[in-house]
Formats: sequence, structure tokens, C-alpha cells
Amino acid sequence: MAEEQGIRARKGENFSEWYTQVVDKADLADTRYNVQGFIVHKTWSIKIIREIYRLFETALEKTGHEPVLFPLVIPEENLKREGEHFGFVPDVFWVTEKGVGERIEKKLALRPTSETGFYQMYSLWVRSYRDLPLKKYQSVSVYRNEPVTRPFIRGREFLWIEAHDAFETHEDALKQVHEDVENMKDVVWGELGIPISVFKRPPWDKFLGAEETFASDVLFPDGKVLQIGSTHDLAQKFSIPFNIKFVDKKEDSKFVWQTTYGPGIWRIMAALIATHGDDRGLVLPFSIAPIQIMIVPIFYSDKDKKDVMKKCRKLESALGKDYRVQVDDSDKTPGEKYHHWEMFGIPVRIEVGAKETVGNFVTVYRRDSMTKEKVADKALAKSVEKLSVEILENLKIKAQTFLESKTKSPKNRHDFLRDLNGGGIVRAAFCGREECAKEIQNETRGGKVRGTAFGKHEKALGKCVYCNHAAKETVYMAKQY
Amino acid sequence: MAEEQGIRARKGENFSEWYTQVVDKADLADTRYNVQGFIVHKTWSIKIIREIYRLFETALEKTGHEPVLFPLVIPEENLKREGEHFGFVPDVFWVTEKGVGERIEKKLALRPTSETGFYQMYSLWVRSYRDLPLKKYQSVSVYRNEPVTRPFIRGREFLWIEAHDAFETHEDALKQVHEDVENMKDVVWGELGIPISVFKRPPWDKFLGAEETFASDVLFPDGKVLQIGSTHDLAQKFSIPFNIKFVDKKEDSKFVWQTTYGPGIWRIMAALIATHGDDRGLVLPFSIAPIQIMIVPIFYSDKDKKDVMKKCRKLESALGKDYRVQVDDSDKTPGEKYHHWEMFGIPVRIEVGAKETVGNFVTVYRRDSMTKEKVADKALAKSVEKLSVEILENLKIKAQTFLESKTKSPKNRHDFLRDLNGGGIVRAAFCGREECAKEIQNETRGGKVRGTAFGKHEKALGKCVYCNHAAKETVYMAKQY
Repeated sequence: MAEEQGIRARKGENFSEWYTQVVDKADLADTRYNVQGFIVHKTWSIKIIREIYRLFETALEKTGHEPVLFPLVIPEENLKREGEHFGFVPDVFWVTEKGVGERIEKKLALRPTSETGFYQMYSLWVRSYRDLPLKKYQSVSVYRNEPVTRPFIRGREFLWIEAHDAFETHEDALKQVHEDVENMKDVVWGELGIPISVFKRPPWDKFLGAEETFASDVLFPDGKVLQIGSTHDLAQKFSIPFNIKFVDKKEDSKFVWQTTYGPGIWRIMAALIATHGDDRGLVLPFSIAPIQIMIVPIFYSDKDKKDVMKKCRKLESALGKDYRVQVDDSDKTPGEKYHHWEMFGIPVRIEVGAKETVGNFVTVYRRDSMTKEKVADKALAKSVEKLSVEILENLKIKAQTFLESKTKSPKNRHDFLRDLNGGGIVRAAFCGREECAKEIQNETRGGKVRGTAFGKHEKALGKCVYCNHAAKETVYMAKQY
Repeated sequence: MAEEQGIRARKGENFSEWYTQVVDKADLADTRYNVQGFIVHKTWSIKIIREIYRLFETALEKTGHEPVLFPLVIPEENLKREGEHFGFVPDVFWVTEKGVGERIEKKLALRPTSETGFYQMYSLWVRSYRDLPLKKYQSVSVYRNEPVTRPFIRGREFLWIEAHDAFETHEDALKQVHEDVENMKDVVWGELGIPISVFKRPPWDKFLGAEETFASDVLFPDGKVLQIGSTHDLAQKFSIPFNIKFVDKKEDSKFVWQTTYGPGIWRIMAALIATHGDDRGLVLPFSIAPIQIMIVPIFYSDKDKKDVMKKCRKLESALGKDYRVQVDDSDKTPGEKYHHWEMFGIPVRIEVGAKETVGNFVTVYRRDSMTKEKVADKALAKSVEKLSVEILENLKIKAQTFLESKTKSPKNRHDFLRDLNGGGIVRAAFCGREECAKEIQNETRGGKVRGTAFGKHEKALGKCVYCNHAAKETVYMAKQY
């Protein structure tokens, strides 16, 4: 068997090439499908992605969301009903024909997002305050005609969740925004160990049709940020054109207040690869590793093989009660197996050879720290339990340290431009003017205002760091994907 | 709160109307979406469907299948590459535009089935016998321009699994066909208690592009059958045009042998509703019930409420370790709750009132038999465990008895026509001629040859029961959905 090739690019030197190689070599995606911008999701990415979905779905259902599935296609007339939202049209793929050249009368959009599909039904489903809050979500692919694509970062077909909620009052809707942000933090930081920065986007960078947009950014190793999800206060901007009304306790008829929340499952996958991966490949936390523990038998004789395999199977069945465990009993050499499963990011490897069998211990390898230690058989269960926590803690510390090292608070224009050009997140006093934001973006070739810190009141004193007008607010800026 | 309305139609009298009402009242689908033939999947159906997916995915992965996800869109040129398969074109929805009226050069089909998407990649993925067998599946929606639609039975967008396997030899492929049939039986009969009849389809009823088609039919209460899944021996009919070659152990280059298997998740959902449901609504077996046990508190005073709720929560947390359990603590009356959860098919209801609290017992209601019994608190865990098995057994017996009562073996033309017209499955000697099959179909307004029994060798003696030519085989016929 030909030896598997490792990643040649270094994450710290050429992140872009490193990312491409990990996607290829860890069996995540194949970009050779013959429709531009559409990728084949390979087995390992699907297995990871379904664990990410499980985390979000469980968390969403705990806070009263219920799953539904709406049609892929949305009539053009729905997209047009809310004026700003119609701005999605340049991004849309249209179904216009069926069968042999038969024209479809009213052309159908492949969902770029599903507000306008959901809300016509909400106008049928909501009658009374008793029907509220209405909190539904779907886990689906969406379609946008992106000019430039990158697996899991930007695609013409990508995976996400969209939650569409309706409430009696604006206050309830704003509470939901907070709940959504907590949901994102709980999963992405809490379970995956990826630090996120949550911002209220500036008015010129809102979701089309939203009153306010709140979004989560992840800082990538190359100093650019990626938005991995957002939640929007829609106020009554959709409920009025879609006529979603309820009768309240006083028997008055009112329009509902709405929010929409989209955890970008694809981009969370990208952030997972980028944040924790290293020069050997993926590094996965326990929570979403499709295989959490890989047991590798090592033997050089048939006699050893029997004892070693017996121990491996015993460990597999004991640990299998609490973890996703596998024994790699393939024909590869132990070294090849190590290499392969390190590429795939399995958090813990247990090596079992003749020494381990005789000595009643195993050798435990941690993917995150690349360290080995001997653990007595009796202590193994405890040890693995401890590792499942420690590995995540270690990944969190590393990632948080990186983010902090790349977050700057320049006080003057010169330092500001240097920091923003240098990559990372720049915190600075800002005048609040779109015109100024545009100038900054031009001068730094892409440095953008990401917004104000969510849930904090950070006053800005003095002048805008760039234009010297009076400062209105403290904002965070970064180059973006 | 307005009392929920029950199903007015009787399953035994007007199955079609009964089915429509269950779909509506058990929160399964909303057919009012403004694109003809596309439905909104509501919460309860999505929750059941994901359990059905879980059963199939677990079973498929146990036999070496791995999940992938291929693009929704397939270029027209792919569909054309295998001549017979191109016959799918009249069923296809086409994406032809993007953005504001921009024409897409090569139009894209919404996948009606994904052979021609998968196999161009298989030609890149398969190099050597070491890459075989290659067994991949995806869980997705597919799109077909059906003229007439019915929720879960026939739709323009429907949910299924498609598994695409490649092998070194035709023998391996034929073994896979048997494994697929076992998979279908294990899940649909074994876990869901729905009897299936597996047939080798006649040559004129094969999948477009297949060498042989083997399909599973379920008999519906109205005497018509629904195909719920099929597996196909593709031989080398796709591997040659798609150039999927491997180098064997002798270093010879050969085309792979392929199978494709499609469990129709939607139709299995339809079969589940139709087979087990009754005049109160759905009846779900334990395996896929989103809630397996519903605990209903009954109290008429605040003092009772406290004790009753305490016991309910205690039961919820004890049973919750092994089952999907919920306490209905809503404001509805106990009667309304019973009615509601019977409609939704929850297999077991536990009633807890003041009597139960004082007496250290509970009242256990079985949805399948609509019977109640008192169970001592101490015996409850054992009792529920027993019920989880007994309910399935009871559903199986009922369904199998119905199928047998509706399967006839007429010996002459008169009885044959009477039986086929009367609904159900008719087993008869047949000449094997497509022409005769067509005449039967015309005369009976839809009676079709479903094929020969899979895996049995049923000789036919004498004459064709319809045309009196020499009999070639024993076939099964029925009217179909």
C-alpha cells in the first residue's frame, strides 16, 4: 500500500494552501464536480457536520424551537414582497423549465434563505396570541450564485440552519436575539472551543430586510475574519407585507414581531478546520469527533496478534459504552495508521502492543498536544473522561490566546492603518459614517467595520481614529473572507 | 382553548379521506404552499422521519456504507451519458437562469436521482481493486415533475436515501442486492412492523438504465400497493459510459459492477401512517416515536397538583434514561391531552392522578390496543420494556393478518379478474408477455404485474390465468399508487 502523503504546506506560513490540502487529504470535499462552485461532501466532513448539526438542533429544541422542512423552491413573487429583501435576486438560481423544454409560468428561486417561503405559511399558522411564540427551524442547503467559492467558506450550495421566530412584542423578539447569541456561544465556543466575536453590524451591512443584524465572527490564522452566523431583528418588516397577524388578549389584531437566526454550519466547519488544525491535519474536540478514540494494535507475530487483538476488542467494547471508538484492524503499518488518523483529527489514540498486553497498561496519545503517556488499564476510563475535558480546554486556551494576540486597540491613524493592514481585529473609536468606512476599506484593501460589541456599551471618547471627526462609537474592524 | 377536532373519516370506509385528515391533524404536512406539488413538512413528520432516517443510516453503516453529500444539480450532459437513463428527462426540473435574467450556459437538472452525479466522481475515486467495494449513500430530497401529488406518496420534492455501490464482480453486486433487500426488511418489517412484499420487476418495469430491478411493495388499506423502495443491479451499464475502471490483482483493467439502492423515506412514512393508523389517528411503534411515553398529570386541586407533578417529574427522569419521555404540563384538560397524543400516535401514555400518587401505581394506556392497566410503580420499568416489544409484535400481527387476508391465488380467469379488481395482491400463473400485462392493466383499470417473488423459485404450471398461453412464471399483481 502506497504511503499516504501528508500536508506539505505549513499552516503558519501559507494558510490558504494548508487549508486546501487539509480539505483534500482529510477526505472533506472533492472540488472536481462538473458544476462550478458546487462541491462533493466526502464522508469525513459529512460525519463531522452531522455532529455539528446535532449540537445545534439539540440546543435549539431545548429553547423551544421545533424542526420543519420547507420546499427548496420559492416563487419570485414571494421574494419580491418585502422590498429590501428582493435585493437577494442577483444571487439567485432560477428554475424556469421542466421536462423537455416546457416553460414554468412563474419562475422559482432555489432558496437563498427562506424568510419568504416560511412567512406566507406563518400568516396561515398564526391566529391568536396562543400560537405565539412560534419558533421553527430547518436544517438545509441553500443556494447563492457566489462568484468566488471555497469549500466550507463560500459556496453556491452550502449547509446551514435557519430559525424563524415570531412573537407578540418587539421586546420578546429582542430577547430572542440574545438567546440566539447564547446558542451560538454555547455550541461554537462551549462545545467546539472556537472563540467568537459578536457584533451589531453597522446599518450598511445589515441582512436585506432586517431592522438590526447581529453576527458572529471567527478570526482565521491569516488574520481575516469569517462570519459564521447571524441573527436578525426583523421587527415588523416582514409581518406587514406577509400579513402575519394575531389577536391579542384584549382581542386586538396586531402584526407579529420576528427574528431570524442562521448558524452557518458550513462556515463553522471551516472555522473548526482553521482554528484547531495543525501541520499534521485536523484536530477535533471530543464533542464532534465522529470517532473519538482510535485503538491501534501493534504486533509482529501471530502469537502477539492474538493477545493484542483480544485486548483491543475488550477496550473497544468497554469504552464503546460511553464513546465513539474504533479499532483500526486494517493491513496498514502502525505508523501509517498513526499518520492517517492524525490527519483526520481523532482526539485520542490508544496503542496496544505486546508490552501493553503483558504490562496491563496502554499508551495513550493526545492529538491536540501530540503527547503520549502510559496509562494503567484500571485507570483508563477515568483518564479518557479527563482527556475529553482537558483536550477541549487546551484547544480553547490556544485559540483564545491567538485571538487576543491578534486584537489591537490603536490610538492614532498610523497605528490603526498598520494594525488593520497587519491582520487581526482592530478596536477603535469611529465616527459612525458609512463614507468613512468606505474610505478605510479602500485604503486598507478590505478592512471593514464589523460593528459594535454585542451586549456591551463601549463609549467612544474623542475623535474617529481614521477621519478625525467626532467619535460616535467604539467599533471593531477587520479584513474579511 | 377550543377542543381539537378528531378525524371524521373512517379508515375502513374512506381510506383516502382518512389519510388526508391524519396528515392534516397529526401535524404532518401543510399542502397550502404556493408551488403546486411541493409541501411543507411540519414538525411531527420531521421528527418521525428523522428517526426513520436514523434506522436506515445505522443499518447501512453497519454493512459498510459511508455517508456523502453530492450537489443538488446535475448537468444535462451527465443525464444523457447512459442512454436509457436519459428517459428521466421528462420528469426533470431545470435550472436555466441566475441573477437577473442571466442565462446558464449548460442547464442543470435538480437531481431526480443521482447516478449520473455520483458516477463521474467514481471514475476519479476508483483506481484499484483496493478501492472496492465502494459503498456510499446520501440522505436527500429529490425532484420530479409528477403530474399528480399526495403527501408522502408522490411529490415533486420527496425525501429518500440513495446508496451507490461499486464492486469487482457481478457476483458481488448481486450479493449487494440481497443485502439491500435484507436492509429493507430489517428496518421496515423488523423495526416498523410494516409487512413488505419484495418482487423482481418484469423487464418493462425496470429502473431506467438497470439490468434488473428488485422492489418492495406495501399493501395499503384500500387494496392498492405502494412501492417503498427498490434496488437495482446496474451491471456495467453505467460503469462503461462513465468509465469507472479498476486494476485487478492480475493488473488487468476492468469496469466495475454496480448497484443502486433507494429506500423511499417518504413512502415509508406513508406506509407507516396507512398500515398502523386507526380512526383516532397515528399509531407509532416505539422505534421511531419521537415521544415514546407521554405522562399526563390529573389533578383537581392545588394540593393534588403538587404531589401529582412531583411524581410525574420523577417518572420522567427515571424513564427518561431509556426512553423519549415527556410530561404534558399544558393547560389542557386530561381528556384533551389524551385526544391530542392519541392523534399523534404516542405508543404509551402514563396517567398520574391523586389515586395513583397515594396508591403507588400508575395507569398505563397502550395506543395500539387502546387498553389501560394499573401498574405498580415498582413494576413500571419492566412493564414499559415489555410493552416496547409487545406493541410492535401486536402491530406486526395485525398488519400481516391484513396482508394475508388480501392475498389471493385465483385459478381461473373469472376469479382472477374478480380478485384483482377487488383490491389486494393476486398471485397467478402468467405467460410473461408485456402485451398480456398491458391487456390485464386495461381490463382491470390499473392492475399491474409487480413481478416474481424475490429469492424464491416459484414454478408456474399450466396456462396463463388471463390469456391462456403457456405459463412462464408465477407472478404477483396488484393495483398501485
